[in-house]
Amino acid sequence: MTKTILLKNRPEGKPSISDFEFVTEEADLKINQGEIILETIYVSVDPYLRGRMSDAKSYVPSFQLNKPIQSGVIAKVIASKNNNFTEGDFVSGMLDWKTQQVSTGEGLLKVDGSKVPLSAYLGILGMTGLTAYLGLNQIGKPKAGETLVVSGAAGAVGSIVGQIGKILGLNVIGIAGTDEKIEMLKNKFGFDAGINYNTSKDISADIKKAAPNGVDIYFDNVGGPISDAVLFNINKFARMVICGAISVYNNTEIPKSISVQPFLVRNSALMQGFIISNYAEKFPEAMKHLSGWLAEGKLTYTETIVDGFDTIPNAFIDLFEGKNKGKMIVKI
Amino acid sequence: MTKTILLKNRPEGKPSISDFEFVTEEADLKINQGEIILETIYVSVDPYLRGRMSDAKSYVPSFQLNKPIQSGVIAKVIASKNNNFTEGDFVSGMLDWKTQQVSTGEGLLKVDGSKVPLSAYLGILGMTGLTAYLGLNQIGKPKAGETLVVSGAAGAVGSIVGQIGKILGLNVIGIAGTDEKIEMLKNKFGFDAGINYNTSKDISADIKKAAPNGVDIYFDNVGGPISDAVLFNINKFARMVICGAISVYNNTEIPKSISVQPFLVRNSALMQGFIISNYAEKFPEAMKHLSGWLAEGKLTYTETIVDGFDTIPNAFIDLFEGKNKGKMIVKI
Repeated sequence: MTKTILLKNRPEGKPSISDFEFVTEEADLKINQGEIILETIYVSVDPYLRGRMSDAKSYVPSFQLNKPIQSGVIAKVIASKNNNFTEGDFVSGMLDWKTQQVSTGEGLLKVDGSKVPLSAYLGILGMTGLTAYLGLNQIGKPKAGETLVVSGAAGAVGSIVGQIGKILGLNVIGIAGTDEKIEMLKNKFGFDAGINYNTSKDISADIKKAAPNGVDIYFDNVGGPISDAVLFNINKFARMVICGAISVYNNTEIPKSISVQPFLVRNSALMQGFIISNYAEKFPEAMKHLSGWLAEGKLTYTETIVDGFDTIPNAFIDLFEGKNKGKMIVKI
Repeated sequence: MTKTILLKNRPEGKPSISDFEFVTEEADLKINQGEIILETIYVSVDPYLRGRMSDAKSYVPSFQLNKPIQSGVIAKVIASKNNNFTEGDFVSGMLDWKTQQVSTGEGLLKVDGSKVPLSAYLGILGMTGLTAYLGLNQIGKPKAGETLVVSGAAGAVGSIVGQIGKILGLNVIGIAGTDEKIEMLKNKFGFDAGINYNTSKDISADIKKAAPNGVDIYFDNVGGPISDAVLFNINKFARMVICGAISVYNNTEIPKSISVQPFLVRNSALMQGFIISNYAEKFPEAMKHLSGWLAEGKLTYTETIVDGFDTIPNAFIDLFEGKNKGKMIVKI
């Protein structure tokens, strides 16, 4: 028996359960020569998937209606007619939201769960860690002593960005939405300061207090009013890594913000959109650093793991409420 | 007798004549050893001066109240006790809005009016030309065959940017505010297409019509709704040179625009503020190309020259009404 989650409707605004459809096929999967059967172990849910659910032109193709949704998945090989894979192997890849599926093995990476938990390959040793490392380094171009502000700081990417910032000698300020998250940023991840955007009376003034010398690098996961507040504090030659804009992904009207152009001119500042797939040639270098720092205990991470295939759509929707700490993963 | 223009009030919104004060000193100027007396010939008025009239933190210090305003000036040496200058020399530099003034010669560049009109050193062979050349090349990084959109296209910088774009093999679209300016862009400056933002019913749709393959480079002099319209048409890896934001310089409230972040993420696009003073080491290379192209007849320029020292404040204010074509200059 195989369960699959299809995209039933393109969400209007915030996605809802009714945008997803569950289908069940009773027949066992069969494979031909060269194929394998995969059983899903972990499914990654990520804000960027919201973009693929709409039909706007974007950097990755839109999901098709009434077809399975895809994301990062860790799966176990339970049958193999492919010489590169053996029953019992674990793999990571972009796969369908299915309990079981057939694959040719193309695009799959074998992963080893003996030294780190398998789920880490969806987070700190996967796209999440690569995005944090390469976004910060390739666009942020950090220099020791500079000040870094991270929005969505308690999220999967943000919490790693801040830790890498500390390793590189930056003054690191995180912005997140609960006092509990702020405590975690400071105590678990070593951020120098944290700002709770839900209780702050003036985010811009609070940034100024935490960054009296101004902001040199902004790693932006959220967009919207939080990013507006950062603009008032940027230094000459500031670099803003635009990695995501979760605060506006669900808007049904085109969102408005403070005009960035005058700030960019006054400060000779830069804003650049970051998409991990443009930096594939840097993955080995990034993985070397990430796994090294992880082994040395310099990097840590938090996961929010929820249970059960049927919870995948809810876990995805919860991202937009900030219900996750660190990487949001569904265990099947 | 010397006339001077002082900054009397920091303008609120659009500058007005009452923000400026004229003072007259009857005494003749006297000089010490090492000094020269300059008689002003041409005064450049530029949108960026609006920024220096406010006391907001910016890349150049604010003008002080009740002190002379400064801008680019061409002057004649009428007395010299400095070995580097002879009576009759012409110089270019950042000088006070005065009919005559004393200088040590520091920061002044001798200019030669025998091959090009002296006023060209305030425009195509001055800051204006350098800004156009270096902004387009250093941030825009043009490749032949790409599409360039220029806003403020009939202005001093914009009209040169478009011509350089054509020299470099780009498809060039200009945005300006009258049909007469659009004709000039196409017939005098060789732009491929022009859009009149005052008569266009849908600027974004008109850009799409003129740039069916999308926009690779945007040279932005204006900000505001015109820049919003361009965003909808940018290509993957687009570069937006933010050179000025004249449409919002006079705003008394912080201007709002469409949120740029989602567009930057979706397209891995870049926006960067351009300030000419950061690129001083590239001036010789830029001047070599600009003067070469001018001599070969590949570059032309338009000036709006108005007469009389007393008209300086009005000429400056007229910039915000788009009354100039090309470089706005006051002849004393």
